[in-house]
Amino acid sequence: MADHPPAITGIHETVLYAPHLDHTVEFYEGVFGFPRITLSDRGASFRVDDTSVLLLFQPELAASETDGKVPAHGATGPGHICFSCEPDGLGAWRARLKNLGIAIEMERDWPTGARSIYFRDPAGNSVEIADGDIWRSPGEA
Amino acid sequence: MADHPPAITGIHETVLYAPHLDHTVEFYEGVFGFPRITLSDRGASFRVDDTSVLLLFQPELAASETDGKVPAHGATGPGHICFSCEPDGLGAWRARLKNLGIAIEMERDWPTGARSIYFRDPAGNSVEIADGDIWRSPGEA
Repeated sequence: MADHPPAITGIHETVLYAPHLDHTVEFYEGVFGFPRITLSDRGASFRVDDTSVLLLFQPELAASETDGKVPAHGATGPGHICFSCEPDGLGAWRARLKNLGIAIEMERDWPTGARSIYFRDPAGNSVEIADGDIWRSPGEA
Repeated sequence: MADHPPAITGIHETVLYAPHLDHTVEFYEGVFGFPRITLSDRGASFRVDDTSVLLLFQPELAASETDGKVPAHGATGPGHICFSCEPDGLGAWRARLKNLGIAIEMERDWPTGARSIYFRDPAGNSVEIADGDIWRSPGEA
């Protein structure tokens, strides 16, 4: 393989699947306040930041109703996503989740000094919020 | 629900699943050149940019072998991810994929002026590279 791939500047679309799309769309709008870009029976898109978008798909429809416009895909079972918050943001997220009746499944400290909280969306996807980079740099001890 | 969620600053982890992890790990290292952070039977992590990481998981192991350290997850079937490249970067990506014998499944122009190419990773996930933002802003006509 060639040694120098053209640059990739980031991840534009991150995808989660939800068999019952409506409840999960409401969750990401209501809990996170992400502005919704599109909504159909097949899926929904949300703006997360200037460069990245969260896509939710109904897996059977994403696998079958592409109309030849986009390649088919569609996974089943719980996926995972981790969002970033401000370095002092986890306290406010704990309070918000408590107010909304959303159970925190786990908390974890990381060697980088960051901390994560984990909970579930209505589709069972594992949702994490981290208050910093939880991954060391490649090659770092 | 409260009206002002604490800020989310981005997506830190984007996840894809691969039942045969080795080939898919080789694909993301070899095709994209992403620096690998970690590798185990259960999964691998790659640094994509300063703020985001791509995680690959073997779905059965991710669902069963958490050792209580992280919540279980694990999806089966083809997922989807879209990477961003430089505005003039798609030509170099087309050439690289051709050299590597990787078929482009589809190309698409978007109303934003951006263009995408689609291909498959060894696990069947739909991989897209877009040369700009393919999503309009929320509320934009």
